[in-house]
Amino acid sequence: MSTTTPQSPAAPAATAPGSVGVVTPQKAVFDAPITLSAGVTLPRFELVYETYGTLNATASNAVLVCHALSGSHHVAGVYADDPKSLGWWDNLVGPGKPLDTDKFFVVGVNNLGGCYGSTGPMSTNPATGKPYGADFPVVTVEDWVEAQARLADRLGIGTWAAVVGGSLGGMQALHWTVAHPERVRHALVIASAPQLSTQNIAFNEVARQAILTDPDFHGGHYYEHGVVPVRGLRLARMVGHITYLSDDQMGEKFGRELKNGELQYSYDAEFQIESYLRYQGDKFTRYFDANTYLITTKALDYFDPARNCGGDLRAALAPAKAGFLVVSFTTDWRFSPERSREIVYALVHNDRDVTYAEVDCNFGHDSFLLDDPQYHDVVRAYVDNIAV
Amino acid sequence: MSTTTPQSPAAPAATAPGSVGVVTPQKAVFDAPITLSAGVTLPRFELVYETYGTLNATASNAVLVCHALSGSHHVAGVYADDPKSLGWWDNLVGPGKPLDTDKFFVVGVNNLGGCYGSTGPMSTNPATGKPYGADFPVVTVEDWVEAQARLADRLGIGTWAAVVGGSLGGMQALHWTVAHPERVRHALVIASAPQLSTQNIAFNEVARQAILTDPDFHGGHYYEHGVVPVRGLRLARMVGHITYLSDDQMGEKFGRELKNGELQYSYDAEFQIESYLRYQGDKFTRYFDANTYLITTKALDYFDPARNCGGDLRAALAPAKAGFLVVSFTTDWRFSPERSREIVYALVHNDRDVTYAEVDCNFGHDSFLLDDPQYHDVVRAYVDNIAV
Repeated sequence: MSTTTPQSPAAPAATAPGSVGVVTPQKAVFDAPITLSAGVTLPRFELVYETYGTLNATASNAVLVCHALSGSHHVAGVYADDPKSLGWWDNLVGPGKPLDTDKFFVVGVNNLGGCYGSTGPMSTNPATGKPYGADFPVVTVEDWVEAQARLADRLGIGTWAAVVGGSLGGMQALHWTVAHPERVRHALVIASAPQLSTQNIAFNEVARQAILTDPDFHGGHYYEHGVVPVRGLRLARMVGHITYLSDDQMGEKFGRELKNGELQYSYDAEFQIESYLRYQGDKFTRYFDANTYLITTKALDYFDPARNCGGDLRAALAPAKAGFLVVSFTTDWRFSPERSREIVYALVHNDRDVTYAEVDCNFGHDSFLLDDPQYHDVVRAYVDNIAV
Repeated sequence: MSTTTPQSPAAPAATAPGSVGVVTPQKAVFDAPITLSAGVTLPRFELVYETYGTLNATASNAVLVCHALSGSHHVAGVYADDPKSLGWWDNLVGPGKPLDTDKFFVVGVNNLGGCYGSTGPMSTNPATGKPYGADFPVVTVEDWVEAQARLADRLGIGTWAAVVGGSLGGMQALHWTVAHPERVRHALVIASAPQLSTQNIAFNEVARQAILTDPDFHGGHYYEHGVVPVRGLRLARMVGHITYLSDDQMGEKFGRELKNGELQYSYDAEFQIESYLRYQGDKFTRYFDANTYLITTKALDYFDPARNCGGDLRAALAPAKAGFLVVSFTTDWRFSPERSREIVYALVHNDRDVTYAEVDCNFGHDSFLLDDPQYHDVVRAYVDNIAV
């Protein structure tokens, strides 16, 4: 079942110790229809995924990594044709790394509604023969978990040793434990929250309005017009980036430094932070799809396991049987430690086994993606104790 | 010198106790050129202003109120033709109010570059006969204070009893004390900061990019095209609003409430916070000018009295001779109490008389505009001790 291609000498980054090497994405086609939370049924769908390590004989060593807003199935390693294409969590996943692929069979999957190959707005709508565009339904964390469960079936994985995710990925890990309690032995919920705060929704709404009001959005059918709502997607990413970084880190990294050393009295980028945000925004528009961005922010806004339990998170998490590692970062103001503690309290009240770490890291919400020693030590220590 | 029109029975709000009543804006024309920080000289300029109360014989009771990003000269009272046109600080300024117009002669002025009647982007550029538009130079807090000083001369005010402002208005009050130390007896610096943080600049940059990339911006010459960059200005206001409110207040006021009680799986406004932000954004585009918004965010970004003192705020504030009231609000994350304390420390080190109040108020940055009893008591107590 392992699909990891052997390390290739053509890709230097892949040959580094701890790398899973050159990897190749795979596609799973599901011909059984799936009915989404929005009430829409997709007659068939595809999921693009990657795997690292080897599934053992009893399939007891499988770990699912769930991606966040702009992530993908490409969690670790590099592609043969692009040595710079390092997976987004390559620092965490690999032989000898905290999520050790010598021990575990790790699966990364691009979620439904995504723009990296799984069925989404860019896919052909069988009803019209044209890309879904805005006709692709809003999907939810629940939908993603359902699709991931079908992938697990396909891969012969009855129970995950662990489901792991940061941010929106952590929400998926959390939902796995209540939707399929028998299929998850451990959940690693990192830099996440039991639901978005009002302010979180507000930032998402600004991002969505930037895209929706871009004249090049064309009601979501911009593919047919041969354009991309670059302006809106760029603004969405810029405002997002502010929330991913801590105020302190931004101050330390960019301060009030001027690009040219003196004030220009113009609207060109003159503070370093302006250049940084514009660069990040521009870059994003070259690889991410605006409809997927809209869908994914909605999935974030909607996630709220306590909604159907009168706001009682403890009741909402009662079905969970997994052991939990919950990690938060002190400078994360998007999903603050307080939000992680809400999850911890609910689980502890339910007599679940919970390890909680509040990591002192200066990089805000983005900390979960970074190679912070304390953070990685915590993950390693927890994961090392998972029996396979 | 007083220009306050007597209370009119036609305007009920104006007849309320403590109201300055119906007011009429005035215009001061300055034919002497003014050279701005950007190096541009305006051959002439106009300032629109209002006054409340009566200037006493020795002109010792004059108070200047400086406005913030979207404020104006219309600080208190109402206009005869619009009973809803309450001044933006009417709760603070009036007979018997904390800034008591029975004692003080209060002046509100629309700043250069503004869109309420003072010379700005909407004014006719004498060089072209057309609106300045984007050709109106970026202005600075220093420029505003220089223009305000000329207005003081015109009004016969040698020394202000106090210069008062919140947020960007507080920056003007602070600059008055170092630019014209002999002309300011007291400065009230409320919900302000000695300079923007990197994050503050980042949010301003998102707002600017929203406007600058709106196809209807036309390089700032949209007046000639008969359009307004509504999309950009709306987004700018939406992201601004998030930073004006506290996370807690937003949560308490809007929570995760759904407009229709259930999820819609669409991009219509469904959470209450979405409706609120859209409403605020839409409203703003009907009365505020996009070029003025750009200019004013630049004035915010540029303000940094310590820039020419190697970052030493104490040295930068050394010329100040005024007494100070510095007020911050516990839930203000735009200009947090920490930023106010930087001002206080610098002034205390300079042996200035400083009163500092950190007001426990739940309304974030917007607290400075609200009628919070503790806050108003602090202002009243300080102002009552100002001799006239």
